[in-house]
Amino acid sequence: MSASRYTYLGPAGTFTEAALRTLPEAATRELEPMVSVPAALDAVRSGEAAAALVPIENSVEGGVTTTLDELASGEPLMIYREVLLPIAFALLVRPGTTLTDVKTVTGHPVAQPQVRKWLAAQLPHTAWESAASNADGARLVQEGRYDGAFAGEFAAATYGLEPLVTDIHDAQNAATRFVLVGRPARPAAPTGADKTSLVLWLRADHPGALLELLQEYAVRGVNMMRIESRPTGEGIGRYCFSVDCEGHITDRRVGEVLMGLKRVCRGVRFLGSYPRADQVPATVRPDMTDAAFTDAADWLNRCQDGRP
Amino acid sequence: MSASRYTYLGPAGTFTEAALRTLPEAATRELEPMVSVPAALDAVRSGEAAAALVPIENSVEGGVTTTLDELASGEPLMIYREVLLPIAFALLVRPGTTLTDVKTVTGHPVAQPQVRKWLAAQLPHTAWESAASNADGARLVQEGRYDGAFAGEFAAATYGLEPLVTDIHDAQNAATRFVLVGRPARPAAPTGADKTSLVLWLRADHPGALLELLQEYAVRGVNMMRIESRPTGEGIGRYCFSVDCEGHITDRRVGEVLMGLKRVCRGVRFLGSYPRADQVPATVRPDMTDAAFTDAADWLNRCQDGRP
Amino acid sequence: MSASRYTYLGPAGTFTEAALRTLPEAATRELEPMVSVPAALDAVRSGEAAAALVPIENSVEGGVTTTLDELASGEPLMIYREVLLPIAFALLVRPGTTLTDVKTVTGHPVAQPQVRKWLAAQLPHTAWESAASNADGARLVQEGRYDGAFAGEFAAATYGLEPLVTDIHDAQNAATRFVLVGRPARPAAPTGADKTSLVLWLRADHPGALLELLQEYAVRGVNMMRIESRPTGEGIGRYCFSVDCEGHITDRRVGEVLMGLKRVCRGVRFLGSYPRADQVPATVRPDMTDAAFTDAADWLNRCQDGRP
Amino acid sequence: MSASRYTYLGPAGTFTEAALRTLPEAATRELEPMVSVPAALDAVRSGEAAAALVPIENSVEGGVTTTLDELASGEPLMIYREVLLPIAFALLVRPGTTLTDVKTVTGHPVAQPQVRKWLAAQLPHTAWESAASNADGARLVQEGRYDGAFAGEFAAATYGLEPLVTDIHDAQNAATRFVLVGRPARPAAPTGADKTSLVLWLRADHPGALLELLQEYAVRGVNMMRIESRPTGEGIGRYCFSVDCEGHITDRRVGEVLMGLKRVCRGVRFLGSYPRADQVPATVRPDMTDAAFTDAADWLNRCQDGRP
Repeated sequence: MSASRYTYLGPAGTFTEAALRTLPEAATRELEPMVSVPAALDAVRSGEAAAALVPIENSVEGGVTTTLDELASGEPLMIYREVLLPIAFALLVRPGTTLTDVKTVTGHPVAQPQVRKWLAAQLPHTAWESAASNADGARLVQEGRYDGAFAGEFAAATYGLEPLVTDIHDAQNAATRFVLVGRPARPAAPTGADKTSLVLWLRADHPGALLELLQEYAVRGVNMMRIESRPTGEGIGRYCFSVDCEGHITDRRVGEVLMGLKRVCRGVRFLGSYPRADQVPATVRPDMTDAAFTDAADWLNRCQDGRP
Repeated sequence: MSASRYTYLGPAGTFTEAALRTLPEAATRELEPMVSVPAALDAVRSGEAAAALVPIENSVEGGVTTTLDELASGEPLMIYREVLLPIAFALLVRPGTTLTDVKTVTGHPVAQPQVRKWLAAQLPHTAWESAASNADGARLVQEGRYDGAFAGEFAAATYGLEPLVTDIHDAQNAATRFVLVGRPARPAAPTGADKTSLVLWLRADHPGALLELLQEYAVRGVNMMRIESRPTGEGIGRYCFSVDCEGHITDRRVGEVLMGLKRVCRGVRFLGSYPRADQVPATVRPDMTDAAFTDAADWLNRCQDGRP
Repeated sequence: MSASRYTYLGPAGTFTEAALRTLPEAATRELEPMVSVPAALDAVRSGEAAAALVPIENSVEGGVTTTLDELASGEPLMIYREVLLPIAFALLVRPGTTLTDVKTVTGHPVAQPQVRKWLAAQLPHTAWESAASNADGARLVQEGRYDGAFAGEFAAATYGLEPLVTDIHDAQNAATRFVLVGRPARPAAPTGADKTSLVLWLRADHPGALLELLQEYAVRGVNMMRIESRPTGEGIGRYCFSVDCEGHITDRRVGEVLMGLKRVCRGVRFLGSYPRADQVPATVRPDMTDAAFTDAADWLNRCQDGRP
Repeated sequence: MSASRYTYLGPAGTFTEAALRTLPEAATRELEPMVSVPAALDAVRSGEAAAALVPIENSVEGGVTTTLDELASGEPLMIYREVLLPIAFALLVRPGTTLTDVKTVTGHPVAQPQVRKWLAAQLPHTAWESAASNADGARLVQEGRYDGAFAGEFAAATYGLEPLVTDIHDAQNAATRFVLVGRPARPAAPTGADKTSLVLWLRADHPGALLELLQEYAVRGVNMMRIESRPTGEGIGRYCFSVDCEGHITDRRVGEVLMGLKRVCRGVRFLGSYPRADQVPATVRPDMTDAAFTDAADWLNRCQDGRP
């Protein structure tokens, strides 16, 4: 039963659910909204769910730092898929409401920066109050507590609301990235357009430790795509780093980076190698291909045998 | 009038207020709680307040990423002081409530990870629901909606509650860092135990850009204390970096780092040089003292004059 | 009188004299051959000569390592010009000698690798013996001790010999680099195609010391053109480095590199900024121009004044 | 027969012969002086000799750059042993000569810098002329052409001379390093105090190429002991690098450095792993031991299998 269940950061009607429904297999799974990212992930850890979809980057519904922290601690989990969803809000209102009727609006606190400029320009005298989630905001409009809610257009039907304005987003090209997380298993085969995610704990707070870490990537020509620092909870100034790079763990250059990090870091957690949502193939230097690694290993063997 | 007013991330009775009250000058200022970090900072930008105290790191009341983002954009502001406050929650209840009576608890969502283990151990069957702030949670307990609220012990009196348990914190040594932010002005004189804060935008998404940035610090022996990536809002994969280093802008080595970053980065925002809350003096390599810089500059002049 | 005298690595009739005569001012100077590079340079140190021309790189007459060592020690000297001379030998013989008559040949030991392949192909049974200089070899042929001498074609007339074969050189594009050395004085004005020469002593034999040195150049985008290690005479494993880079000491980026090296090295000797013989303009990254340095310095001043 | 023959840089009676005789196996070999380093090595290449002893660093008899260049080109050879010999000259004279009789002295040009200060202090009016080798100088004194020769004390008997002064050396701790070179074969087993020698050709004359090369060593914590640039003969500004590092090719960290260099360099020539003459054990970072490499490889395998 659990294999057929996917959890996600709820409530229903949020962007996370919309992202989950872009996955083909979602059609055949029982999709269960959870109250928080930890709850969604704990259901996977306990075996109640096969996987969980949670936001991990640039979310308009929060949860991002929680996701990073949850993946960095507790029982290990791994990422198997990623989903990108463009950020675009609708202003949801009760039927019949016009723009001039909107005196109060609500939404998740994280949504506010995304609609702030639009609000200042279009509804300068309208008051914002935060809701626990975008979907909760819609419910509060349904109940009459606010005049409008910023949420995904797809949430309107659920709460008997209408999208008065759509495609609201302050930043161009803004998107949220979600990941599908499961218990550890063999990563999917490389596609040529893959990403590998790690959590790294520096061995010491010495000044050059982060520089050393980056050089492990640089020296093997592996492109780092994202690096985020997160407090470890051990006090001010103690961090771990959440890092994504191009390539798959079975690529020789990526494997050597991972082994190098394993040696120089206090801790390394492998979070998975999985296809990039944008399907952009990895750029590989000609001297860092699998063939270049194999040639070098052959040459080393010959040197050790006295046939350089 | 504005010079006498300090804003802070409210509401009243939160950790931020407690932190603000540790500053001697707070006693002679009008302290005004604001609904959000942007609101607290905008009051400074507009001149309505002289300064604002906001959390910037490891907060149990949220606001941290918002603070970083707010300081990185909009009208420039500068940091003049920092305050460290140990994280420790009290479980606030209505008078007469015992631990076995506590079936529901509330608090700011960011507080949850800090009390999670305590809750699992002491009150495993108690349900958590999030409140808009720790102080709001206290108010909701006062109103009878929940049995207990996690908040600062100092909030009890305001809401007619009692601290049932105190000093609750899952992580040892956990603390929140707050900063006092004002409009740009000449930084305070160096104390020998200073910190310099910057926001940096990399010029290009080329793999070595972050490495280059770190080398500007490393080559002048300037210790980086904190680096955090923040999305710029220009889309997935575009970041700026919030960086603190040891030392004061008037230290020669720090000045040269800043000039180096100014050249190689797409953008640099100087957020101030200010005394470290922990008063730990900067460690300076013997070849990176002001005297070493002056000697080298004298020698360069002599070489240019043909007297090497 | 001394201002009118230039010394050079003799004897007369060698490539060094030929290189010296390519300098326009040589026509108005008294040119004096010296027995060795140290002798040529000591004449400058003592004031007996205004300048000395000596080989410094890839010479076919030796003296290169001696030149590097001499410039690195003793009373400081500076480089003011460089001269490039293509390497090409003539086989000089007594009039009437044919190729089949040539059973023994001579030349400076350093010339041998340059003519080795030619000799093996054209005169496989001919014996080589070394002479003290290429010109000395010519003299020994004149005296009848050998049948042929490898030397510059220009040396034939001096010794009553004939060039039997010309333009002999095993490597394509081979050239010798000479430098004109004088007592320290203000360097010539920058031309846009300049070179700056240093001798550097690493502070400690710690593994990363050379890496640090190179990073001083790299972080300011200054191209290193040549790096040669030389033993310091303090024992096996102790080196100094002779380094040429693009640019002039009055270029801001080069000046900052020099100051950086002065701080991190045990010793730095400035050997001069002078026009490149090949007249190739320096490649300057857009973020490392003098204007970029000035802008960064202005910005730093503004930050220090509270006007970022 | 060839297995019993060792060649060396002659003539007999030089420091190289003295160095060769420090090897235990020299007692059972036919030792043959050769006219030059190339001649000594070519005898090995052709199979006429089993090995050759030649100076490679800080020699007082020249041959060092020739040795580096010879090992870098032509049929591959490998280094199996190294010998360190302190530099100390004797002033050899005909019996009966006193110090005041010595008006002219000779010696190899490379010896001159080693005795220059002594000569200036003790025999300020004595003229120096160069000889083809230190032994040749002794012969010329025997023939009466000069009054004294600087050579090894051991050369006196061969030429019927007497050591008038011994232990002459300008620099303290000066020594010459010699290497025993043979045809390629499996390197000797590691001793814990080994050295690995390479010749490296940079792929491109781009500014950071040398920095990249050094980082291959640095990132695996392998200490570089010596780096020397040598012109490749392809023209001014084209170099190869002769590099010694601590450790043995069978050490995991050294093997990974070699493979890394093989990938990023235009060419790599393995010159051997052999015991250090000074018997100083390699310093190995705790995170760069063979065990650390094995652990990291095991972990990588587990990650690839989904058991991180």
